[in-house]
Amino acid sequence: MKAKTSLSLPEKPWHHYLTIDLILTVLNYTIFHPFVACIIPLCLRAQLTPYEHPAMRLTIAWAFILTVVSVVGLMSDRFAYGAPREVDLSEEVIVVTGGARGLGALIAEVYGMRGANVAVIDVKKFGEDEAEEKGIAYYQCDVGDRKQVEEVGKRIVEDLGPPTILINNAGIVHGKPLLELSPEEIESTFRINTLSHFHTLQTFLPGMLSAGYGTIVTVSSVLAHLGAANLSDYTSSKSALLALHASLRAELALLPQGPNINTILVTPGQLCTPMFSGVKTPSNFFAPIVGPVDVAKEIIRMVDRGESGEIAVPLYARWIRLLGVMPVGLQSMIRAWSGVDRAMVHRAGNGNTDS
Amino acid sequence: MKAKTSLSLPEKPWHHYLTIDLILTVLNYTIFHPFVACIIPLCLRAQLTPYEHPAMRLTIAWAFILTVVSVVGLMSDRFAYGAPREVDLSEEVIVVTGGARGLGALIAEVYGMRGANVAVIDVKKFGEDEAEEKGIAYYQCDVGDRKQVEEVGKRIVEDLGPPTILINNAGIVHGKPLLELSPEEIESTFRINTLSHFHTLQTFLPGMLSAGYGTIVTVSSVLAHLGAANLSDYTSSKSALLALHASLRAELALLPQGPNINTILVTPGQLCTPMFSGVKTPSNFFAPIVGPVDVAKEIIRMVDRGESGEIAVPLYARWIRLLGVMPVGLQSMIRAWSGVDRAMVHRAGNGNTDS
Repeated sequence: MKAKTSLSLPEKPWHHYLTIDLILTVLNYTIFHPFVACIIPLCLRAQLTPYEHPAMRLTIAWAFILTVVSVVGLMSDRFAYGAPREVDLSEEVIVVTGGARGLGALIAEVYGMRGANVAVIDVKKFGEDEAEEKGIAYYQCDVGDRKQVEEVGKRIVEDLGPPTILINNAGIVHGKPLLELSPEEIESTFRINTLSHFHTLQTFLPGMLSAGYGTIVTVSSVLAHLGAANLSDYTSSKSALLALHASLRAELALLPQGPNINTILVTPGQLCTPMFSGVKTPSNFFAPIVGPVDVAKEIIRMVDRGESGEIAVPLYARWIRLLGVMPVGLQSMIRAWSGVDRAMVHRAGNGNTDS
Repeated sequence: MKAKTSLSLPEKPWHHYLTIDLILTVLNYTIFHPFVACIIPLCLRAQLTPYEHPAMRLTIAWAFILTVVSVVGLMSDRFAYGAPREVDLSEEVIVVTGGARGLGALIAEVYGMRGANVAVIDVKKFGEDEAEEKGIAYYQCDVGDRKQVEEVGKRIVEDLGPPTILINNAGIVHGKPLLELSPEEIESTFRINTLSHFHTLQTFLPGMLSAGYGTIVTVSSVLAHLGAANLSDYTSSKSALLALHASLRAELALLPQGPNINTILVTPGQLCTPMFSGVKTPSNFFAPIVGPVDVAKEIIRMVDRGESGEIAVPLYARWIRLLGVMPVGLQSMIRAWSGVDRAMVHRAGNGNTDS
């Protein structure tokens, strides 16, 4: 596959792959897993360890804590997000914005290979051969332009039926200091990264409400929580999506169809897509560059399960909100140490696009 | 003063004014104040209480904890925000966007009464008599329109000199469900609430960098952290400002003039300005409606002191980020209980404006 070559990770020394994410993944399947933790006291008991033995007490306590934490976690998720809906791909129509490259392309291609009805909306033009080969319907359209989105929306409904899964992924990045951005660049960032979500929601949500079910995926960025030097327009356009996602959830909760419309917020860390080609990695151990495959896998899994929720990859993206509640001095120290504001080296020329 | 009448709180029963904010204010000046806490063991000592007495130990420990907490807090703030700059109003030129009504008008009028050089940019037209009476220079301008901002910027520089204090306060709210917003309404929200900040920053920041000092006040909203039903465009346009503020701080930190350019983020709760006339109060004890006077006072105090920082009024706005790190189930419960999504009753007609 041609497309995959540019997206796969280049060869790196072994310790490049040793990240905090890998370590935690291993721990989550071993001593942090409630089932494994419950096995240990059973093994001790099989060795006839008395209940009063400190090792016995400790392992039972550990198993108990992990079990309580995971049960409470499950209940908390269920309370917030409700029961999952049943997703039968043959009855769904999937729309991916910005699906010609990067993360969007991966998601569209996976669904295409699985024989789902996939429509890609992208400003990039596509050859008909390629589209047929991949089982994807391509529609050329600037998602930041309301009229184009409406027109393409009508064509998709005619061709495939009303979309029920909307993956709002299109985005561009200019990567310039605030004072060097042209007014047109700022506007294009907000048109494509933010207003496009309003356009696609207003175009496709009514169909989902009629169908009584649907899934809306909002792709934001971990930088939406942080801001970053040379990315003022990008981070603020993505930050807007955090509140849009929350507002959308709040409005859906007031509707009778609400419980059957999933909402998924994605805040990935730095992806190794062409869009972020100019970005250096501050710390590969704590903030590893993420392959778009990892993010696509998580998105597809949650969509398939019919669940709502938040996807934050890698690990630090899941804990980024903690930074906001720390004392400001500590925030500044972590920020300086993380190098987030040195990551975006100033680039000349046009912005990169993932749309 | 005519303008003030509409802004003052209407008559309410006494317990309306008993809020968590009032209680904490009293506590902060009494038993939560390190100085007061240090007095207590001295009083006990004056009564010849022995050091071993539990009351003595407890009060000394309390005084010690409060002192450590406040010293660490001060150090943390100083590390994050640097030393304050000296603000001499006679050498400053103040620009307030959306300064014809509400919060912006209050700030402009206070500075006008103090004889400072104040320019108000607002889409609303103003009588010359009123302007002269208040000591404010009014410029009619749509802050969402780049060209108008640039032109008005030039006129302000000619009339008063290059602005050094920029109070980005303009904002509008439509208060409609996502699917009922017209594309024009969504665009106007982002133009006025978000893009205006980029326009004014690009217009006035170069002058501050030349002068070597300045102050930038970004007025967002507590709802930027939360999102809310019927406020999807408003909350996301204000959420964008959170990341813009952080990015601006990050870029300024890289510049030699950075330490002398203050940045202030304001995230007020619900204000009793005309703009939010359609909003009901969910809980007056925990989330009291704030008089714009309270917010204006805080902003003016921080600007005058030459400090950077965040202003969040009332109390819950200061702790709102904690909500984001709670388990999602708990977040949902608090959200449902707070009534934030029932607050914005759907209004017909045009949006209210504070610009």
